[in-house]
Amino acid sequence: MLPRPAPAWQTTTWLNTPEPLTLERLRGKVILLHAFQMLCPGCVARGIPQAQRVAEVFAGAPLVVVGLHTVFEHHEAMKLESLRAFLHEYRVKFPVGVDAPGEGGDPIPRTMSAYAMRGTPTTVLIDAQGRLRRQVFGVHDDLQLGAEIQTLLLEAQSQPAEACDDGGCALPLVASRD
Amino acid sequence: MLPRPAPAWQTTTWLNTPEPLTLERLRGKVILLHAFQMLCPGCVARGIPQAQRVAEVFAGAPLVVVGLHTVFEHHEAMKLESLRAFLHEYRVKFPVGVDAPGEGGDPIPRTMSAYAMRGTPTTVLIDAQGRLRRQVFGVHDDLQLGAEIQTLLLEAQSQPAEACDDGGCALPLVASRD
Amino acid sequence: MLPRPAPAWQTTTWLNTPEPLTLERLRGKVILLHAFQMLCPGCVARGIPQAQRVAEVFAGAPLVVVGLHTVFEHHEAMKLESLRAFLHEYRVKFPVGVDAPGEGGDPIPRTMSAYAMRGTPTTVLIDAQGRLRRQVFGVHDDLQLGAEIQTLLLEAQSQPAEACDDGGCALPLVASRD
Amino acid sequence: MLPRPAPAWQTTTWLNTPEPLTLERLRGKVILLHAFQMLCPGCVARGIPQAQRVAEVFAGAPLVVVGLHTVFEHHEAMKLESLRAFLHEYRVKFPVGVDAPGEGGDPIPRTMSAYAMRGTPTTVLIDAQGRLRRQVFGVHDDLQLGAEIQTLLLEAQSQPAEACDDGGCALPLVASRD
Repeated sequence: MLPRPAPAWQTTTWLNTPEPLTLERLRGKVILLHAFQMLCPGCVARGIPQAQRVAEVFAGAPLVVVGLHTVFEHHEAMKLESLRAFLHEYRVKFPVGVDAPGEGGDPIPRTMSAYAMRGTPTTVLIDAQGRLRRQVFGVHDDLQLGAEIQTLLLEAQSQPAEACDDGGCALPLVASRD
Repeated sequence: MLPRPAPAWQTTTWLNTPEPLTLERLRGKVILLHAFQMLCPGCVARGIPQAQRVAEVFAGAPLVVVGLHTVFEHHEAMKLESLRAFLHEYRVKFPVGVDAPGEGGDPIPRTMSAYAMRGTPTTVLIDAQGRLRRQVFGVHDDLQLGAEIQTLLLEAQSQPAEACDDGGCALPLVASRD
Repeated sequence: MLPRPAPAWQTTTWLNTPEPLTLERLRGKVILLHAFQMLCPGCVARGIPQAQRVAEVFAGAPLVVVGLHTVFEHHEAMKLESLRAFLHEYRVKFPVGVDAPGEGGDPIPRTMSAYAMRGTPTTVLIDAQGRLRRQVFGVHDDLQLGAEIQTLLLEAQSQPAEACDDGGCALPLVASRD
Repeated sequence: MLPRPAPAWQTTTWLNTPEPLTLERLRGKVILLHAFQMLCPGCVARGIPQAQRVAEVFAGAPLVVVGLHTVFEHHEAMKLESLRAFLHEYRVKFPVGVDAPGEGGDPIPRTMSAYAMRGTPTTVLIDAQGRLRRQVFGVHDDLQLGAEIQTLLLEAQSQPAEACDDGGCALPLVASRD
């Protein structure tokens, strides 16, 4: 099965970044998308620390770690002000987008739905061409994650960077692979 | 220095208990008071799990584990609704009081001030006669905490329970030991 | 059931101590006896570090931490020279006795048999009067161990050191053991 | 700097394998060589468990995990019989070679010298063409190790195995194995 383009991110706000991030703006870089909820114990104890270590270990590589706050329960408890304090207290430095509320009262936010995530934490790997390559629900093994990231980094290095930056050429390129 | 009566708890709300707790109501029992903030990483990773294990290991003993939500920063981020969800997600079953806001805009809540706590987590041990016996800021050693709790439990067992309920006789009793 | 006198230690050698230790020599002190094998993973990862922390936390108290090398398998692999290097590498500073080989080819060494230990690690608590008060096979909880040690320390402090135990009084009893 | 051929292994015995392993016999596979001492705390607590997880996570890949017992101190304490029991107790299933004693009374064993290892644990990565690609003294990061292994696995997959090594060229060698 060919990898499909990663669904667009539908967010209401971004923290830790001067401007909103999109898949198009990050084209050419490998993306680790870490979907979490600030009150999810597994995210706090394992997922977020792992994402932080990925950012450290692969500093210098064309890799971007991006958080996505996918609140699907206790919505009142995890509003923007709480998330902001959470990121501060846990020293989360990578950009975090707030997933847009589900349509028509759906408790599942939009990006979470588009990726068909099963819960939090979910780790998503997107290659330099914007394609969804890996999605893992729950705690992911460090050795395996390291290997998966490296696969995408080496691909990005060896392949001609046909995808244009700034989103201009991206759609045709992805389309030609479908 | 002789132990002094533990300062009264000044709270706005209680969770995980049908009715508010007071020192007087708990007279005759040893109290482990765990002061925390839901967005304090050390509390979440170490302090609260320790308090939960104390409740398990000493189940059956005349010991009560009580949480105190002493928010002194990011007040907007840790309101009641967030705390409620936090306790649910982290399976905190022991009663938790919400420390009352400081007077005159003081960011330090009242009970936290009364105990002169230096931050969170803070572990407080109160003996069966309502006296403050131990206060530790930061992560406390399990072996040492176990020993300290046992000291107070054995005292409670061996001493005549002369202290009155509802605080009426407490001071004279303590005084008689001075 | 009244506590019984702890069985005598039957050892061939002692390390980390200028002279052999016996229950009689330690009378008046609480004893944590940690029975281990140097190639037992649970001992190395959990038991020995716990015994070391007990020695640190209760430094100053009338408590002695004593190791007992109770080899009941792989005898050729855990001889004295190996044990000596093990204690050096793992920075074990407390005295360690080598349990005497079982009689008549019994693979279970003598002290291990006398205490009816079920395996390693085993944690034994002996009170200041030389009585066996607690024996736990496997990893023991820090909080609980702290409480148990404190119970014996407080007893030692409050009781006249002449107390009677099963069917006899302390002074004659001690005499009868010498 | 071009990678150099990995030095040959000089061993006296092998455990967990029906026949001795050599670099030549493993040509075509990526090798994780884990150099350890059975009484080295860092090896026992971190290095060996990591090597075991590598073997699990990359099961199915053309990767071989090999242990090397490089005793450079306490030689009497870590003889073959002790190592055998150690591997049994710690459930180490991968092949382990015993490094040959240093020449002329050198306490450093031969393979350890040939690789100029600084101590234990040391993690060595050798590519499918037998070349030394990475050598890390001390605890190695899981994410980074996963990435490094994957790099060598992908290389092995994509490259023709034509490289030369010490004293021979790859094509005849590979041919002789076909």
